Amino acid sequence: MSDLQLVPGNSLRTATPEEGRQLAVKMARLVIKLTQPDDEKRRQQRAIYAENPMMLIAIGQTVAAEFATIAAANNYWRDRPDAN
Amino acid sequence: MSDLQLVPGNSLRTATPEEGRQLAVKMARLVIKLTQPDDEKRRQQRAIYAENPMMLIAIGQTVAAEFATIAAANNYWRDRPDAN
Amino acid sequence: MSDLQLVPGNSLRTATPEEGRQLAVKMARLVIKLTQPDDEKRRQQRAIYAENPMMLIAIGQTVAAEFATIAAANNYWRDRPDAN
Amino acid sequence: MSDLQLVPGNSLRTATPEEGRQLAVKMARLVIKLTQPDDEKRRQQRAIYAENPMMLIAIGQTVAAEFATIAAANNYWRDRPDAN
Amino acid sequence: MSDLQLVPGNSLRTATPEEGRQLAVKMARLVIKLTQPDDEKRRQQRAIYAENPMMLIAIGQTVAAEFATIAAANNYWRDRPDAN
Amino acid sequence: MSDLQLVPGNSLRTATPEEGRQLAVKMARLVIKLTQPDDEKRRQQRAIYAENPMMLIAIGQTVAAEFATIAAANNYWRDRPDAN
Repeated sequence: MSDLQLVPGNSLRTATPEEGRQLAVKMARLVIKLTQPDDEKRRQQRAIYAENPMMLIAIGQTVAAEFATIAAANNYWRDRPDAN
Repeated sequence: MSDLQLVPGNSLRTATPEEGRQLAVKMARLVIKLTQPDDEKRRQQRAIYAENPMMLIAIGQTVAAEFATIAAANNYWRDRPDAN
Repeated sequence: MSDLQLVPGNSLRTATPEEGRQLAVKMARLVIKLTQPDDEKRRQQRAIYAENPMMLIAIGQTVAAEFATIAAANNYWRDRPDAN
Repeated sequence: MSDLQLVPGNSLRTATPEEGRQLAVKMARLVIKLTQPDDEKRRQQRAIYAENPMMLIAIGQTVAAEFATIAAANNYWRDRPDAN
Repeated sequence: MSDLQLVPGNSLRTATPEEGRQLAVKMARLVIKLTQPDDEKRRQQRAIYAENPMMLIAIGQTVAAEFATIAAANNYWRDRPDAN
Repeated sequence: MSDLQLVPGNSLRTATPEEGRQLAVKMARLVIKLTQPDDEKRRQQRAIYAENPMMLIAIGQTVAAEFATIAAANNYWRDRPDAN
């Protein structure tokens, strides 16, 4: 196992849904970094993702799955004073 | 991380299931926009999705996953006065 | 965003599991319609799905995901007087 | 929409986990039947599934998803007198 | 429907997470056996899985899905005296 | 079934989200090890994953699914004294 930190801040709690979504994207990317630690290769792969419609969809599915967990962890941000 | 806002309105709450579904579609699209920020390329890719049966199905799976979270966040809209 | 209504009846509540399953199928199809609004093209694509074993399986996965949300929204129809 | 019944018995409740699993398999198959109503073609497709490792895995994922909903609907069969 | 038993022991309850994981693997395999009942063919297919990275990943996704249900059925083994 | 232990420590409980994420990665890898027990072959396959964008995404989906279960098992680490 690498020394890479996989959960930024070691917490699933975020102040807002937007921050939760950003965390979902980061956590998805960190698993890819764990498997492919070479920064230059990941940069090249990102260019491939961006041009490939099926990969773009698959990335969307990954982020949706991570976000489902983060949203549940934050009780869907229902307790925010300004939550409508 | 980009400045793109990934959760429109920074809230998962919507007044109705229909609005929740529309939000699921928007959130799915915004992750794609994050990975492929070029508007013209995304326009071209949408034409590819629309002609490709497997991609259409995969988009449906993504929207279903996003909607599952949004529906839970809204307690399935059970509290609506007109919910049957 | 189109004017297409994505949640028929704007409600996830149904009287029975069977109606909930039918709603899951409709909601899955409406996302495809949103991405491919041309009726004739969708008709042609349905013929492709029907002949392609992997696509048939993938459609099944989509319906399963939609149904999971609808079933939860209806508290799994536990409150039905005739639920066994 | 066809007249095909998609939820056998119009109920997600089953007496045992085994019956719940059998229901999951049936519900997965009925969605395929909805999309490909021709019995002879489905028979041919089943022969294709059986020989294709990736399709076998994908069928397993579909059944797992259907079963997750059925298991939740039955409160995981915790209330059975003989549940251990 | 075959006579194959799909849920070993007809119960989702296990004493430990390890046994729950083993059950997830068994349940995933039994769905494959239902679709491909020929023992020799399944033996050959296992050799194919083992050499194919994408299939190995897909098997992992199936086991993860089965395990999610089993873990919930066991209330995540929180009630074990020695659970930490 | 092999003697391979599939749940390290035979527990889903971890002190922190980071440890939970590391456990998700380990559990995902152990299922692959169960199917492909040859260490040298798995080493070669890891090199394939690392170069293949679609496989990297699929690994991310597997980890997300395992983590969802582990996070729920730990009640999303809400009880940690330092949880914000």
